[in-house]
Amino acid sequence: MLRQASDTLSIQAPRAGLHEITDEICSWVRATGIETGLLTLFCRHTSASLVIQENAAPAARRDLEAYFEHIAPEGGAYEHDDEGPDDMPAHLRSALTATQLSIPVQGGRPLLGTWQGIFLFEHRRNTPSREIAFHLVGE
Amino acid sequence: MLRQASDTLSIQAPRAGLHEITDEICSWVRATGIETGLLTLFCRHTSASLVIQENAAPAARRDLEAYFEHIAPEGGAYEHDDEGPDDMPAHLRSALTATQLSIPVQGGRPLLGTWQGIFLFEHRRNTPSREIAFHLVGE
Amino acid sequence: MLRQASDTLSIQAPRAGLHEITDEICSWVRATGIETGLLTLFCRHTSASLVIQENAAPAARRDLEAYFEHIAPEGGAYEHDDEGPDDMPAHLRSALTATQLSIPVQGGRPLLGTWQGIFLFEHRRNTPSREIAFHLVGE
Repeated sequence: MLRQASDTLSIQAPRAGLHEITDEICSWVRATGIETGLLTLFCRHTSASLVIQENAAPAARRDLEAYFEHIAPEGGAYEHDDEGPDDMPAHLRSALTATQLSIPVQGGRPLLGTWQGIFLFEHRRNTPSREIAFHLVGE
Repeated sequence: MLRQASDTLSIQAPRAGLHEITDEICSWVRATGIETGLLTLFCRHTSASLVIQENAAPAARRDLEAYFEHIAPEGGAYEHDDEGPDDMPAHLRSALTATQLSIPVQGGRPLLGTWQGIFLFEHRRNTPSREIAFHLVGE
Repeated sequence: MLRQASDTLSIQAPRAGLHEITDEICSWVRATGIETGLLTLFCRHTSASLVIQENAAPAARRDLEAYFEHIAPEGGAYEHDDEGPDDMPAHLRSALTATQLSIPVQGGRPLLGTWQGIFLFEHRRNTPSREIAFHLVGE
């Protein structure tokens, strides 16, 4: 019979940019005891986001960070800068990536591809602690 | 025991741009009587989308609208313009943002962060009525 | 009573760009016998993605492909190019679109709008076979 599990985890990235959280997520799924189902991750912020990307090549990670710095740059003609020059670019980069990800679970693990890692994409330089809500339905 | 609820709501934005629909969504969730679960919103269109963003600062909303007007502009060299100059930019802005959002529900409410609001991002100037499909699984 | 179904399908696009997979997805949903629920599609790759777009106008599809070639171009100053010039642009285009889509199901069909089609967005020129994980919860 289907059941659900849910939780909220606090995660703090060591610096702005991509911070891999695959291990934390796999541990949480394993602890629920649910073998088959659907996992959802939800980022409770508008200046950080979630992204699934290549987890083998650090150069790919640096290119991805540089790309978002380029297409949603600091120093643009933004009206909103209450919290500093990285405030509005953080909202833009969040809107361009994902606030939420859902991943099928099989054999007690998220069904990621060989090269996929799950990343918190921290867009602020002061890297506040971030809350990620977890939900898993399955059996 | 888990159960589900689903519905389709028609929403018309007053003008192109970000139109907050958090209240409509919270009301719908409350009416289902489901306390804990997973809410999914699905936009049944390719020229409007969904976005979770800062709901406190109107300036952030204006900057976000201006940004998407800038990176997916009207007047580009588009082949497809059956429905006017805002037709193809609308498809591009939809592809860059989200057609669907899933949000964990706790205590009968979507587990949004303090500053998060849910917005219909209307990309057409004539602002047709839009259908948003709702699904909630939980108990 | 709610139940779930899941599967992984291999799909190979004939060329880089948007490849419609709506029919394959509808067939799979129908075969599960689930009438009402939530379908999730998950792309197990970081150089291909999923997108819901206009499925009537081939010109819209060409414009969308050209747009992503323009904003995440080959020939940029990328550090990561292990697999050739289309490697890093593929990761960027994936990050800008969706790795996962969830769609409510009603009457045994995904609740797509009239003009919506589901596309595999293949970002590599060699078009490897891609695995899409399916999950459906409902009754």
